[in-house]
Amino acid sequence: MIRIPTDTVTSTLKKILLSRGFTPERAELSARLFADSNRDGVPSHGLDRFSSYLAGMKRGLIDPNAEPRETWSNGALERWDGGSGPGNLNAHRCMNRALELSGQFGVGCVALSNTNHWMRGGNFGWQAADAGKIGICWTNTMPNLPPWGSNSPLIGNNPLVIAVPREGGHVVLDMAMSQFSYGALSRYSKEGRKLPVPGGYDDDGLLTTDPEAIGLSQRPLPIGFWKGSGLSILLDLMAAMLSGGKATCDIIPDPGKETGISQVFMAFSPPDYPGLADRVITSLNPDGNSSAGYPGERTMNARRESLKSGLPVDCDVWERIIAISEEPL
Amino acid sequence: MIRIPTDTVTSTLKKILLSRGFTPERAELSARLFADSNRDGVPSHGLDRFSSYLAGMKRGLIDPNAEPRETWSNGALERWDGGSGPGNLNAHRCMNRALELSGQFGVGCVALSNTNHWMRGGNFGWQAADAGKIGICWTNTMPNLPPWGSNSPLIGNNPLVIAVPREGGHVVLDMAMSQFSYGALSRYSKEGRKLPVPGGYDDDGLLTTDPEAIGLSQRPLPIGFWKGSGLSILLDLMAAMLSGGKATCDIIPDPGKETGISQVFMAFSPPDYPGLADRVITSLNPDGNSSAGYPGERTMNARRESLKSGLPVDCDVWERIIAISEEPL
Repeated sequence: MIRIPTDTVTSTLKKILLSRGFTPERAELSARLFADSNRDGVPSHGLDRFSSYLAGMKRGLIDPNAEPRETWSNGALERWDGGSGPGNLNAHRCMNRALELSGQFGVGCVALSNTNHWMRGGNFGWQAADAGKIGICWTNTMPNLPPWGSNSPLIGNNPLVIAVPREGGHVVLDMAMSQFSYGALSRYSKEGRKLPVPGGYDDDGLLTTDPEAIGLSQRPLPIGFWKGSGLSILLDLMAAMLSGGKATCDIIPDPGKETGISQVFMAFSPPDYPGLADRVITSLNPDGNSSAGYPGERTMNARRESLKSGLPVDCDVWERIIAISEEPL
Repeated sequence: MIRIPTDTVTSTLKKILLSRGFTPERAELSARLFADSNRDGVPSHGLDRFSSYLAGMKRGLIDPNAEPRETWSNGALERWDGGSGPGNLNAHRCMNRALELSGQFGVGCVALSNTNHWMRGGNFGWQAADAGKIGICWTNTMPNLPPWGSNSPLIGNNPLVIAVPREGGHVVLDMAMSQFSYGALSRYSKEGRKLPVPGGYDDDGLLTTDPEAIGLSQRPLPIGFWKGSGLSILLDLMAAMLSGGKATCDIIPDPGKETGISQVFMAFSPPDYPGLADRVITSLNPDGNSSAGYPGERTMNARRESLKSGLPVDCDVWERIIAISEEPL
């Protein structure tokens, strides 16, 4: 991991995206969303994925200039079609629209079909909280997780984001329905470490903390066993039903072909409630010496360090991005 | 467990509630909500709790005739004050109002402060789905679960319900943020059984499947460890912020005194999407021989049996209810 100045990262990504046909404004926003993920300590959903984002365009899964458009509305609930556009730009647009609706109706919900991987979902939670609103969003995915009672990956890990604004650092949850992502399993495996808690089954059907055994069995564990499995199913059903788009079972189960996914973006504008978020956070650690943090706390710590020292980027990832930026198309 | 005819159960409960000052209409609805829980195979949140419901009135925590009222609105988002009324009736009223709002605005959200335990949250999910809408509701609770990183019960288990309508049986998730409720732990303990998966920590801080050890340590496990802990915190923050009511840290941590809780009820009216829910359910068990079910399936099985044979009621619980119905006030 090296530290690179934010401007260097965003201008490099922007240059590449311009060469792929992005308009300047969209290249700028996309570059910033990638950089924000690294800034916030989530390189796995930031620059680590930039080359797969480019590959999606090369394969025709992602149309760089497709903009999402409204296809149906009833007051505070709207359906948008993502037109196979870049997932991060589509998501940003739809959260913006949900925020507008919440200003008008108190609550707003935009359901998006036919979109692509949004990279880091947390970005869109921070977007809502930065606007002073409560935000919720989630996505379905290709089948990549066995439902409780099955050994086959038939449901999605369907990340869910909930964000509540707070002066001094929003409270933001960004979690997939699997206990550990495949990315996290690889990281533990690469570092020769065991998981801190059981993360799936081995080939003998036993719970294990061995990341390699789970990689081999392809049986990661849903959070809370049957509970996370059920929550994944409901999030998927809601995303498809609200958007009129695809459910997990309709999506090609291949990371190189995953497209046409469905997402939901909600925003809420309640009256102010001064002090509430601080009171709740303080209550989690009444004597000040437990390690109980709040969701979003590590993000703020990572962000502070990044703003001081530059964005953390994996050396190999950065070398590859530099090489791409220098190659002829 | 014995089977009692539905009419016998509801008329017995209704008679008792009338004697406590309920109006006939409210006694009828409350009796039905209790009976529905047993009908659906959830006696732990049905008749098993009827005497604590009465005790709440005796202690002055529950005002039998308080009706919830709107205190603030902005289009599709409303705040209601529960007036310390019966939690099940307040919840039913607020889900009805969310359903009305969703008819008008596509989506509706009612946030309720100052209410009491709703008994079985699933009832209000079925209520939404029976109306042909998607429903979401959740509640905060008194502190009863340690957040990740702490040994003390500082967050709530905050049950969350999501319901999607489906011809032939809705898809309904009804889950608390703890892996096992204290009720479930007692049941395993009483039956001398171990938990099927680790459900908390023993006094040595080790994960255990021993229900008694968890009862002693008072350290049940959030679903997905840090993930369920984070989700509990966000659900609590949202419930308090939207309703203007109490957060978990403001609620007295004593089952006999828990009151003034906050809840959220949402309904969504998207266009029809025929066949979606069936397709998703079928996809969970493609070869027809795994044990993967869908959320709500066990409910429908229990309901079918109850409609045939009567409501399952614990013998001791029924004896006690009969005794109450016969005693002078």
